Amino acid sequence: MKGYASLSVNKHGWIEKDKPSAGPMDAVLRPIAVSICSSDTHAMHGGAGELINVILGHEAVAEVVEVGSLVHEFKPGDIVVVPCNTPDWEKIALQQRNSNNAHDEDLMSSFKFLLRKDGVFAEFFSVNNADANLVLLPEGVSTDAALMATDMMSTGFYGAEMADIQLGDTVVVFGIGPVGLMAVAGAKLRGAGRIIAIGTRPNCVALAKEYGATDIISYKNGNIVEQILSLENAKADCAIIAGGNTESMNQALQIVKNNGTIANINFFDAAESFNIPAYNWGLGMSDITIRGGFCPGGALRMKKMLNLIRNNRVSPEKLLNYKFEGFDKIKDAFILMDEKPADLIKPVVHIQW
Amino acid sequence: MKGYASLSVNKHGWIEKDKPSAGPMDAVLRPIAVSICSSDTHAMHGGAGELINVILGHEAVAEVVEVGSLVHEFKPGDIVVVPCNTPDWEKIALQQRNSNNAHDEDLMSSFKFLLRKDGVFAEFFSVNNADANLVLLPEGVSTDAALMATDMMSTGFYGAEMADIQLGDTVVVFGIGPVGLMAVAGAKLRGAGRIIAIGTRPNCVALAKEYGATDIISYKNGNIVEQILSLENAKADCAIIAGGNTESMNQALQIVKNNGTIANINFFDAAESFNIPAYNWGLGMSDITIRGGFCPGGALRMKKMLNLIRNNRVSPEKLLNYKFEGFDKIKDAFILMDEKPADLIKPVVHIQW
Amino acid sequence: MKGYASLSVNKHGWIEKDKPSAGPMDAVLRPIAVSICSSDTHAMHGGAGELINVILGHEAVAEVVEVGSLVHEFKPGDIVVVPCNTPDWEKIALQQRNSNNAHDEDLMSSFKFLLRKDGVFAEFFSVNNADANLVLLPEGVSTDAALMATDMMSTGFYGAEMADIQLGDTVVVFGIGPVGLMAVAGAKLRGAGRIIAIGTRPNCVALAKEYGATDIISYKNGNIVEQILSLENAKADCAIIAGGNTESMNQALQIVKNNGTIANINFFDAAESFNIPAYNWGLGMSDITIRGGFCPGGALRMKKMLNLIRNNRVSPEKLLNYKFEGFDKIKDAFILMDEKPADLIKPVVHIQW
Amino acid sequence: MKGYASLSVNKHGWIEKDKPSAGPMDAVLRPIAVSICSSDTHAMHGGAGELINVILGHEAVAEVVEVGSLVHEFKPGDIVVVPCNTPDWEKIALQQRNSNNAHDEDLMSSFKFLLRKDGVFAEFFSVNNADANLVLLPEGVSTDAALMATDMMSTGFYGAEMADIQLGDTVVVFGIGPVGLMAVAGAKLRGAGRIIAIGTRPNCVALAKEYGATDIISYKNGNIVEQILSLENAKADCAIIAGGNTESMNQALQIVKNNGTIANINFFDAAESFNIPAYNWGLGMSDITIRGGFCPGGALRMKKMLNLIRNNRVSPEKLLNYKFEGFDKIKDAFILMDEKPADLIKPVVHIQW
Repeated sequence: MKGYASLSVNKHGWIEKDKPSAGPMDAVLRPIAVSICSSDTHAMHGGAGELINVILGHEAVAEVVEVGSLVHEFKPGDIVVVPCNTPDWEKIALQQRNSNNAHDEDLMSSFKFLLRKDGVFAEFFSVNNADANLVLLPEGVSTDAALMATDMMSTGFYGAEMADIQLGDTVVVFGIGPVGLMAVAGAKLRGAGRIIAIGTRPNCVALAKEYGATDIISYKNGNIVEQILSLENAKADCAIIAGGNTESMNQALQIVKNNGTIANINFFDAAESFNIPAYNWGLGMSDITIRGGFCPGGALRMKKMLNLIRNNRVSPEKLLNYKFEGFDKIKDAFILMDEKPADLIKPVVHIQW
Repeated sequence: MKGYASLSVNKHGWIEKDKPSAGPMDAVLRPIAVSICSSDTHAMHGGAGELINVILGHEAVAEVVEVGSLVHEFKPGDIVVVPCNTPDWEKIALQQRNSNNAHDEDLMSSFKFLLRKDGVFAEFFSVNNADANLVLLPEGVSTDAALMATDMMSTGFYGAEMADIQLGDTVVVFGIGPVGLMAVAGAKLRGAGRIIAIGTRPNCVALAKEYGATDIISYKNGNIVEQILSLENAKADCAIIAGGNTESMNQALQIVKNNGTIANINFFDAAESFNIPAYNWGLGMSDITIRGGFCPGGALRMKKMLNLIRNNRVSPEKLLNYKFEGFDKIKDAFILMDEKPADLIKPVVHIQW
Repeated sequence: MKGYASLSVNKHGWIEKDKPSAGPMDAVLRPIAVSICSSDTHAMHGGAGELINVILGHEAVAEVVEVGSLVHEFKPGDIVVVPCNTPDWEKIALQQRNSNNAHDEDLMSSFKFLLRKDGVFAEFFSVNNADANLVLLPEGVSTDAALMATDMMSTGFYGAEMADIQLGDTVVVFGIGPVGLMAVAGAKLRGAGRIIAIGTRPNCVALAKEYGATDIISYKNGNIVEQILSLENAKADCAIIAGGNTESMNQALQIVKNNGTIANINFFDAAESFNIPAYNWGLGMSDITIRGGFCPGGALRMKKMLNLIRNNRVSPEKLLNYKFEGFDKIKDAFILMDEKPADLIKPVVHIQW
Repeated sequence: MKGYASLSVNKHGWIEKDKPSAGPMDAVLRPIAVSICSSDTHAMHGGAGELINVILGHEAVAEVVEVGSLVHEFKPGDIVVVPCNTPDWEKIALQQRNSNNAHDEDLMSSFKFLLRKDGVFAEFFSVNNADANLVLLPEGVSTDAALMATDMMSTGFYGAEMADIQLGDTVVVFGIGPVGLMAVAGAKLRGAGRIIAIGTRPNCVALAKEYGATDIISYKNGNIVEQILSLENAKADCAIIAGGNTESMNQALQIVKNNGTIANINFFDAAESFNIPAYNWGLGMSDITIRGGFCPGGALRMKKMLNLIRNNRVSPEKLLNYKFEGFDKIKDAFILMDEKPADLIKPVVHIQW
């Protein structure tokens, strides 16, 4: 079968591989819609080690074509939503908390596609623990919206959850790329009052406002920290870092009040370091809480996300402002994401077989 | 009246000041037992800015000598326990969470003694919001034990609380000075299984074991991180930083598992910086939570601490291994704490009038 | 001064009383808008014991006319929002959790108006701990919206908070009177997916949908429990009881799934009893959590509520569908609330002096 | 193979059945120690419906004799601890919270033995999801202690966890049978100050004190509620119901303060009803939280329990005050538990093959 792969560091293209087969708890799927994520291009450039001949992609809505002998909930022909994190539910660390890190010491161990096996930019791909990880596409939810739930919405909303937003809180969101935009939407859905989003690109700014941002701060207008502090002459209750670099943590520490919370959903580069003056963290005495992670996986989380979409609480499909038709267009969409034109938010490829 | 003061940076001695008077919600007290804390000597050396002619001391059990017109719960002659943090309860930030930072943007704003007014090493000292901050010394609790509850126990236990210890967790405590020893005791009281304490001094090691440490790690035996990881061939669930420096955070990040928690109760120096490779924090994706703070103030917290002592759950008075008798001995005790001989854990001065 | 009072059980009318004076931490206020609550009429009918010559009313926006000597944040002329619960912040039980019950063993001890002193249907009324309980009416928030924040919104939202709603949950709200309607709005603001509201009156049904209800269930269409269970062929994640009687608890137990949560914000009659077959509560093994309470008091909570209104997250003023002008109209509004015509949601009286 | 079974309601005895075989994720075990629980005798008497020819028993330490093709962590010969609740980890409701109810609408769905398949009083028994449910008996933990961790300790401790005990709280435990005794020990391990246990039998009273009870209340000395309230002239922070009947809930509501917590770990009879005057629950306004459930299942929880035992935090084997040797003695032990002599706490049967 054909797949779009990282061939070596900085090199990508079509590749031919064997169709995956289904182990007893697995399903084999055929994608009907996929989206490209900056993690795919980042990985191709060596951001997660050298990926040689590994098929990329981890956001998909798909059709079941084969199920293992122990799979009871799905059958060929089912249209399913595939969460980007698919935990091995027999791992016991998951019994304490469902997190993409819960398996073991291995970072992000429930993130299988692309890091631990071939991804979804293929004619066929497999999913472990199908019964516990897949969800039928519900009536009343579009393929595009469901596709954006698999990673962007689940990750952005995890930022809002980790930030422990209380009703009426003032929340700052660093970055208004697709994950940051979903963090804004998630902050609104958890009951934030004022939502201050940091970003510049005009179509992202417009969408941030539509998703609930009340204020937009741009580095083009001066120092970010000073601009935020001047808005209410007060610090924020929480911050969500959904973009930027390690310096964003210092900025967050300066604009979040004592007792506040900083949630990170930004993937920092392995070469970066945080350099935080002790004073910024109140000499260790500020009662500020710092958390960071990637979205939890599994079917239940995905069902909750889809329940929000189905009840018109959020419209994540608005992120998809570049649309492609046909499996072969995965290449164009990938190159687009790699080049990142200024108006790109997120591309989708619809596939008919 | 007489008090023992920071006269200028690095200079300390007796000073003569006016006796404080009681505002409507205040009490004026006369100490009957005080202890010296490294924060007192640290402040005298300029650690909290230049303290000129400020009476030091923030750990005391005392006798009420005067109360303001709005104080209803106490009267002259009462023997009371004085928490080191005495919030202004009319400040509204406290309505969300009782923390020593809850007043406003000002760091550690409920820590009044020494930073915001004269401390307890005096013939008389005042306490704001007396009804909400003082507690009668209960029957069955010794003065020494109560004295250790005012800061050491409350702060060490706050570390255990912030670490969010679950029954059977493995917990690492960095530092076994008096606060670290109380963190060990607090970890045991929250239900930790294995408690690994990092420290070297023999009498502290012995006391750490008595308070619940199951393993002692010393830098003298090699790399701290490697020693801890080799104990169970697994990472810990939580770490409490109660000593060391900003590098301890890097060590903590390396020995706490994904999804774990790091609680800091160490006061870092304003000149220090954290330098944390992004990799240590799992590129922001490890689901490790980091919290840091100083003990919450007020009477209710102090009552809970005293309830533990009265029911024989903990014996914090064992920290007091140097004892002085008489108000004038505050000077000797202070110099002792400043010089920190290797066997010093904590000195007490008992005062009779 | 004049006030509208409960004269004896079932008897109400105007009364003449002395103008209150301000203690050192109090403020004396003059109402500019008040609303009548069914608690006011219920109390007049003896629902909270015999109220003789007690001025009623506990929802007000008002002008400060006098402040005590220890009040620093307010001055005569300030227009303030008055939370219906005004805790005595020097009471230490509040240090653990801000709840209207936190003072002591006395139920709802922070609810002062009407139960513990004269209420707001008067030319003047007093507020204890003014600095910690009052909030300036912010720019951009109407008097009507602020008035609805003082009790209806804060109490309805407390139901949503106690229900511990997670993103995408299905929530059932029992009752769509004004508090129930605010519970619906609160459930939406905490991120509920499907919101099933139980009620019948057409204008309340319409408003419930506007506030976020996706489904309306009416007892007129048959058994409530069966109707709800048939909607998704599944139980709900949480229920909020904001109306009905003790039998509502049995219904809630039948429609909430194992591990779910039931939050009560309904004031049950002292003569009622819960009669719950052990089977309904899973023989004690269902992991269903049951909580109940009245809104927390104080200025910070009120600020958070006003922050939501100012940022257009909710429009509680839509509850006010009967409007009166003039202090003397308090009587008409009170009688209206007592008679409860079918189309009444909530009456407001605007007062000019 | 031979097993001790409920033959019909009120009738029990040895039965001959086929040896179970291992499905792909299962293990087949041979018990080396079992204990009888009142749930076993209760079930035999029809307490969980009519059990016809069902082998009883759900507390076991055992030897692995066969594993399914997908089991990786265990092999024949391993000695393992078997939690009484063994969830099907592929069920998605478990992804939100590990609870014995998390599978689906079916009450206590992770409790398989005895209710959903043959139990452990057999020559062989099977365990589903072996990798995720079994734990190797750790070095330094006795068979007897591990046996008591499988249900008694895990359930009693769950009571302490649900009660949300904070450091220094006063906790009341209703009932000092084996589960209640473990609730006492659990309350101590979570940091309770005063622990008031309600019970009468002398050896249980002695063990309650050893496990941490500071006060013992007996119905023989008068009204339980009055006795407790007179101890401190104050209500308790939390209560754990580990015995009694539905009337215990009314008692708990009267001795727990507003804002407190009531945790139930008592299995109520299906024929019982709670009859709770609204006044006891503060007319719904008391901010008291009520929770109830049975211990969570799975390997991780069991590991945490064993970690406590291995580090000498608790000695649950002290519950075992009747000891039997030999598989055939299961009958005697069962009859003993059914007859419940006054001095029986818990019987163990050691088995050698």
